[in-house]
Amino acid sequence: MTLVTLADQDWIDRVGPVPGVEMIPWDLTGPCPRADEVEMVVAPYTLSADGFERLADLPRLRAFQLLSAGYEHAVPFVPEGASLLNARGVHAAGTSELALTLTLAAQRGVPWMLEGHRRQHWQDKHFEPGLADQRVLVVGYGDIGQAIVRRLQPFEPEITVVASRARAGDDLVERVHGIDELDALVPHQDVIILIVPHTDATDRLVDADFLASMREGALLVNVARGRVVDTDALVAATRSGHVRAALDVVDPEPLPDGHPLWSTPGVLIAPHVGGLAHGFWRRASDLVRRQLHHIASGEPFDNVVEIAR
Amino acid sequence: MTLVTLADQDWIDRVGPVPGVEMIPWDLTGPCPRADEVEMVVAPYTLSADGFERLADLPRLRAFQLLSAGYEHAVPFVPEGASLLNARGVHAAGTSELALTLTLAAQRGVPWMLEGHRRQHWQDKHFEPGLADQRVLVVGYGDIGQAIVRRLQPFEPEITVVASRARAGDDLVERVHGIDELDALVPHQDVIILIVPHTDATDRLVDADFLASMREGALLVNVARGRVVDTDALVAATRSGHVRAALDVVDPEPLPDGHPLWSTPGVLIAPHVGGLAHGFWRRASDLVRRQLHHIASGEPFDNVVEIAR
Repeated sequence: MTLVTLADQDWIDRVGPVPGVEMIPWDLTGPCPRADEVEMVVAPYTLSADGFERLADLPRLRAFQLLSAGYEHAVPFVPEGASLLNARGVHAAGTSELALTLTLAAQRGVPWMLEGHRRQHWQDKHFEPGLADQRVLVVGYGDIGQAIVRRLQPFEPEITVVASRARAGDDLVERVHGIDELDALVPHQDVIILIVPHTDATDRLVDADFLASMREGALLVNVARGRVVDTDALVAATRSGHVRAALDVVDPEPLPDGHPLWSTPGVLIAPHVGGLAHGFWRRASDLVRRQLHHIASGEPFDNVVEIAR
Repeated sequence: MTLVTLADQDWIDRVGPVPGVEMIPWDLTGPCPRADEVEMVVAPYTLSADGFERLADLPRLRAFQLLSAGYEHAVPFVPEGASLLNARGVHAAGTSELALTLTLAAQRGVPWMLEGHRRQHWQDKHFEPGLADQRVLVVGYGDIGQAIVRRLQPFEPEITVVASRARAGDDLVERVHGIDELDALVPHQDVIILIVPHTDATDRLVDADFLASMREGALLVNVARGRVVDTDALVAATRSGHVRAALDVVDPEPLPDGHPLWSTPGVLIAPHVGGLAHGFWRRASDLVRRQLHHIASGEPFDNVVEIAR
């Protein structure tokens, strides 16, 4: 039997029995039970590295499975000889769904509707931009970018996508533009959705020049990482009314109480909840179950993160 | 030349020249210019019947084109021998887009996000239901119902649709359930979206019994007509916390200042703005242009409303 730890009994029940695998609960907050026997650890769903140092106490550890797509925080704690596995794919549904939620809320005036609730008053109608016929640029075309485009398409916008390199299209888009075409594309868009990974190349990709080149009144949606946008430049560009913004991630995070973005008209902020929808549970337990089958049968794992040692 | 009136010069510019047709501006607020010659009137985009009595002054009137899908308010004013044309199809994109906006805003907690803005504070995260894996029932399966299902599908919910009669499915759904199956379907749904026409059969279709049979915490979305829901029963069912609601239409409309629905947690109200998105303009002018080609070439009109005289 291969001994695997999961965060708690709920997770064990959710994954269900896997032949050749024994599951025990461990949430990394105390010493690992049966530390000498454990071959795989499935982390609780968290973005912190609390307790990750305890992985060093597990001499037979072969794999450490995260439930987040991000993995940088875990890299320093993975013992030599063990694989780090992330949850790539698990969050595409939730994050793309939130990208559309923020986009539609901003494009159809949900904050304005809630102003009606505050005043308890049926407000005068007006037209909002919506998504139909709008030009939408999706910056980043990995699994979440594709999930966003798949959800955008039936709303009848004109969709353009940009990735790190230009390439042929797929069943969703005719072609994928390269990041070098970004400057030429930005001024023509009504909505720009960011879903690039945060790297040196994308750090503060959206700066004062980028924002100045956006259309008057256009919407910037960030479901990537806060540092992809220069916050000071965004404060200036939204306060002046030049652009609007809908953000699931900000820099710094958490955004401090009283920060000017909280009170800027045309800015909608979610507190980094892209993955926090109920659809997560089935997708995550499906991934874990698959990985347990892999370890029990000696197959290669899915979602192995390359670690430079 | 066939003489046609449009609301104003903007509309004439939007439609553009049509061979054999002369267009003049008239918004029905004063006497019709060249009343003896006008053969077709395109109404301003409004749900009121203001000025419709002036159609009686047009002896050669052959067609009265509305820009709304609803037409009941116009029926009494259409002269014998003239056709009433509605804007069926024009509002499918805008209304289905708003249905998704309200659904996603409620299912991903946009009102809660705006509470964070009010407090200028990064709130503690929590899971929201979302749409992925949720059971969604669409009640009404005309052009807007289909547009809703087309937009829902990529979000990965389990979709069931109901129409007045059971029938075979299409490219979107395996089968269309009949309204007689509604009682059996309602208790299993996480989200119920109403987009039926308002008729004697659908008047207060959603009453206290319907609401009581809904799942605890389920969401009712109304983008049909206010009278399809019994408002008093909805107030009781939402105030108790049994169900949530997201409404573009209410009864009475406008909802009076201070009405209990304004301040009930879990209720989100839009002031009947389903069609009010920029995508309307191209879709409406495409329809009008098509109808002007029809009248100039003696072809039958699209979207003719059957009037019982």
